[in-house]
Amino acid sequence: MNRILFEPGEIEDGVATCCGERAAHILSVLHGEVGQTLKTGVVDGPIGTGEIVEIVQGGDSPLVRIKVNHCEAGLAPWCDLVLAPPRPRVMKRLLPQLASLGVGTIVLVGAKKVEKDFWGATLLKEENYRPLLVDGLMQAGTSALPRLETRRNFRAFVRDELDAMFPTRRRVVAHPYGCDGRGACAAEGRLLLAVGPEGGWTDEEVSLLESHGFVRYSLGQRILRTDTALVALLSRLGD
Amino acid sequence: MNRILFEPGEIEDGVATCCGERAAHILSVLHGEVGQTLKTGVVDGPIGTGEIVEIVQGGDSPLVRIKVNHCEAGLAPWCDLVLAPPRPRVMKRLLPQLASLGVGTIVLVGAKKVEKDFWGATLLKEENYRPLLVDGLMQAGTSALPRLETRRNFRAFVRDELDAMFPTRRRVVAHPYGCDGRGACAAEGRLLLAVGPEGGWTDEEVSLLESHGFVRYSLGQRILRTDTALVALLSRLGD
Repeated sequence: MNRILFEPGEIEDGVATCCGERAAHILSVLHGEVGQTLKTGVVDGPIGTGEIVEIVQGGDSPLVRIKVNHCEAGLAPWCDLVLAPPRPRVMKRLLPQLASLGVGTIVLVGAKKVEKDFWGATLLKEENYRPLLVDGLMQAGTSALPRLETRRNFRAFVRDELDAMFPTRRRVVAHPYGCDGRGACAAEGRLLLAVGPEGGWTDEEVSLLESHGFVRYSLGQRILRTDTALVALLSRLGD
Repeated sequence: MNRILFEPGEIEDGVATCCGERAAHILSVLHGEVGQTLKTGVVDGPIGTGEIVEIVQGGDSPLVRIKVNHCEAGLAPWCDLVLAPPRPRVMKRLLPQLASLGVGTIVLVGAKKVEKDFWGATLLKEENYRPLLVDGLMQAGTSALPRLETRRNFRAFVRDELDAMFPTRRRVVAHPYGCDGRGACAAEGRLLLAVGPEGGWTDEEVSLLESHGFVRYSLGQRILRTDTALVALLSRLGD
């Protein structure tokens, strides 16, 4: 945790209170003491610093109170993602990394080769995925919370919604074949990256994306697992 | 698994035999049948294709025999790594990804902030880490097995061994501060990347690396977890 983030409801009269994992981290990893200054912030809000004003030991879990001063804006997201989700186990590992890397909106789409039972995954409940995203933000030291959307009908989403939701011209679809990697970098602006399922996009899906301005991009001859590929793609296509 | 790899001892008279995870993958994911052709190869050896000649069901685990024809060279590694290892749990997740990404030699070094008990980890036994590396190769479709070395004395390793072991001039140390990111790309040749522990390099360690020709490189303002950062660095610094 390179920044301790609080939910707005955890801050009262300029004093934030936390227990559980964050308190344990402050005390055991950061060796927190009263008077010590930490990097802090509000989930999806401003960031700044905080001074530890009280540590309440005892009980199951210690409790830490921090006087916070949040008046800076955190780093803004720089890209969005249309993702045909991998298995929930992989997705769970991926979400904090996407938050760390600065993704704004993640639209999970029902491409043909997405496993049907993915859509019943408990991970899709906000109370389950939100903490994973917040973990990624605390790791990166940022605060802008990615939005997670689901669109099971991939065709309808691309045809009817995508252009309005993402008005950028810099659109890239990750696809190992027939690609012109360099073309992807030509357009300016915020990146919209489309990444297929573990079995790949179908030809029809790639064509549909191309007809909406997406340019093919390949990472080369080595075939990477979805989570590795996503980190690699965002790093390659980042500033 | 985008290529099924066999140990040399698993191939006899041009026929490879496998059971367990690979056999299950061939049958359930690739829907393998007698006569079907697969991408195959030898761990740390040549690659090619194989034709399924026999499937023996029954017992605990099915067994698959494949007539193989391995006469191509796999992709060669393009970089090496000096890594102050993260916790074994993170390292375990990282090893297959490093194999997938084309790392040649991985030297695990005892930088100051590496946890002392790392060196007793069972993961450091070849029988434990080798399957993780092979998994990464089968994912990527390549066969060149990374070598894993350990050097607990970081100073002695850099001073006495590094130059002979890695005669490349393209040396980059990942470090968030005071860096000139562009400088890292100036030298040509095989990449040698040094990545610090979760708590970072000490100033002395960075100075020592710099005195051996390493150039600082930063991924930017977002602080990434070691495994995310490594994938990001290799993607940025790759061809």
